[in-house]
Amino acid sequence: MKAIAIRRDANEPAVIDVSRPEPGPDEALVRVLRVGVDGTDREVIDGDHGGFPDGEDHLILGHEAVGVVEESNGNTFEAGDVVVPTVRRPPDGGNEYFERNEPDMAPEGKYVERGIEGAHGFMAEYVTSPEQYLVGVPREFVEEGFLVEPLSIVEKALEHAIASRSIFDWQPESAIVLGNGSLGLLTLAVLSERDDFERCYCMGRRARPDPTIEFVEDRDATYVDSTETPLSEVPDRYEPMDLVSEATGYERHGVETIEALAPSGVGVLLGLPEPSTFEVDGGTLHRELVMGNRALIGTVNSNVGHFEAAVETLRALPDAVLRELVTGVYDLDEFERAFADDDTTIKTAVQLSEYEER
Amino acid sequence: MKAIAIRRDANEPAVIDVSRPEPGPDEALVRVLRVGVDGTDREVIDGDHGGFPDGEDHLILGHEAVGVVEESNGNTFEAGDVVVPTVRRPPDGGNEYFERNEPDMAPEGKYVERGIEGAHGFMAEYVTSPEQYLVGVPREFVEEGFLVEPLSIVEKALEHAIASRSIFDWQPESAIVLGNGSLGLLTLAVLSERDDFERCYCMGRRARPDPTIEFVEDRDATYVDSTETPLSEVPDRYEPMDLVSEATGYERHGVETIEALAPSGVGVLLGLPEPSTFEVDGGTLHRELVMGNRALIGTVNSNVGHFEAAVETLRALPDAVLRELVTGVYDLDEFERAFADDDTTIKTAVQLSEYEER
Repeated sequence: MKAIAIRRDANEPAVIDVSRPEPGPDEALVRVLRVGVDGTDREVIDGDHGGFPDGEDHLILGHEAVGVVEESNGNTFEAGDVVVPTVRRPPDGGNEYFERNEPDMAPEGKYVERGIEGAHGFMAEYVTSPEQYLVGVPREFVEEGFLVEPLSIVEKALEHAIASRSIFDWQPESAIVLGNGSLGLLTLAVLSERDDFERCYCMGRRARPDPTIEFVEDRDATYVDSTETPLSEVPDRYEPMDLVSEATGYERHGVETIEALAPSGVGVLLGLPEPSTFEVDGGTLHRELVMGNRALIGTVNSNVGHFEAAVETLRALPDAVLRELVTGVYDLDEFERAFADDDTTIKTAVQLSEYEER
Repeated sequence: MKAIAIRRDANEPAVIDVSRPEPGPDEALVRVLRVGVDGTDREVIDGDHGGFPDGEDHLILGHEAVGVVEESNGNTFEAGDVVVPTVRRPPDGGNEYFERNEPDMAPEGKYVERGIEGAHGFMAEYVTSPEQYLVGVPREFVEEGFLVEPLSIVEKALEHAIASRSIFDWQPESAIVLGNGSLGLLTLAVLSERDDFERCYCMGRRARPDPTIEFVEDRDATYVDSTETPLSEVPDRYEPMDLVSEATGYERHGVETIEALAPSGVGVLLGLPEPSTFEVDGGTLHRELVMGNRALIGTVNSNVGHFEAAVETLRALPDAVLRELVTGVYDLDEFERAFADDDTTIKTAVQLSEYEER
């Protein structure tokens, strides 16, 4: 079968021929429909994040998939069911985090990640998976189902942020998303649909005209150009933020998030910066956290519960969100276009096979 | 009546004569029994924190009080009831935070603090207070009741920290308290009594023999000498910490707390550093928060709910904790001894009047 992989000796992905995987005793065989591309894929391709499976000379890419069960093999899923696979797998035989269905909380070394770190991904015509790593999706989402994984990241981040504010009567009004990549815009779309935040903002570096700025404004949110207004000036120029969601991995954003927070506010960090040393007024940042009852929360990955919440969110999002967000879906023979990242791209996917009504 | 106050032109507190306060229509008159002294009082005396009431040339000190109701004035409290007052008051007529009974979550400018910021404290023979700022305490705590306020700070901090971990199955084992002052040791005592943490540590700068180190070890906790093992080396030398509670205000501790945290761990900051600029690897700190699902939470002050929880905690603490912790209680005529801070001091209080059985 065909798969899209990165080889150890290459710096661009390529279509390769590999044998179709044989499902193990408890595994379903899934025919892959679509797989989304995101910033993590680009980091993996560039060698900045993740790693190859042990003993393999290539890594099949892709961790945002939607597929259809081809062979159930005794699972509760039936052939024809539309499913989305989760990303983390136990490295050898399982551990407590997987037993608790919270692999997203496992520390490094206690998991591999399909398509990212130590395990092949989903950009192949077929994949296999045990039942517990598959989430059922209504058939109406055969096209958009690849958004469930990135939406689950947003669900987890907001869940963790809001849990940290659950012990008092938090009355947030303002939220800013840092980053107008696909994860940032998905976060903005989710926040705009919720009643919690009256005023939403999105910060990016792009200038008008730009489809991401249009996307932000179509959500009735305010676009903040970081080349004009750095994050530290957002409270004065706009307002202090009850929620800051960091989705760029820019290394100064952790510090600047604290500066942008309103009292009782929470910053949630999703992006992954590289090491970077710089000067900060650590005393004042620390004091601001204390005097303002502020919180800073890091979150990574997501679990089946977040995937299920993401399916509900996908159902609630207006059609326009998905229409504006997905700027391209490409077949295998032009898959390179899905990895392009230019000013007209928001979210792309590769089409591995077509859904057929049974 | 007598009161202990700091004058604008002085740098040491003094006993002054002031008129006995007249209770307003809804206010109880409280005869003060004891008032504890803590690091905040020393910061107020040194002019590093807080401020004088508008138009006054002095500030009556003290925010950790226990007293007995002298005149109820129609409150539900009766004459003879033992009470502890909370600290924050609305600056002018109230606001939403006070209406929600969460003045601890009010931003700066939305409160004054008795004995600290803009309002006279409790180191006086009599104080007045509306009912909603008084918490009833069993009569058995006429002596130790002044510990309810500092314990309420610990209750709030742990509540906020644990709430941030409530959205997943957190299974903490290790906790470290930074600081062997009275707040740090109270935190350690509370953590040692809870089932949540199998192994507790306390970090300080003092060398043996020292009563605070004895206090730590009597709680079956491990004392970490920061002059030998800096916080950043604690994970290697001891273990990564599921909970870090910062009670010193040392300006580098905010950053180092992140370095000391285990995956899924939470650091809670209570201390108040001064501004201080230094270099940090902000990229790596940010990444550690994300990849390890770590959290950093600032908390300040406490509300009636935390005071009530503190009363329960006070009841549960072994007698030895209180006996070892309170190293001196001094009458008005030798009140200066309560403000001394030497190597034999842990927690002190001033005795304003004696409790009399009615």
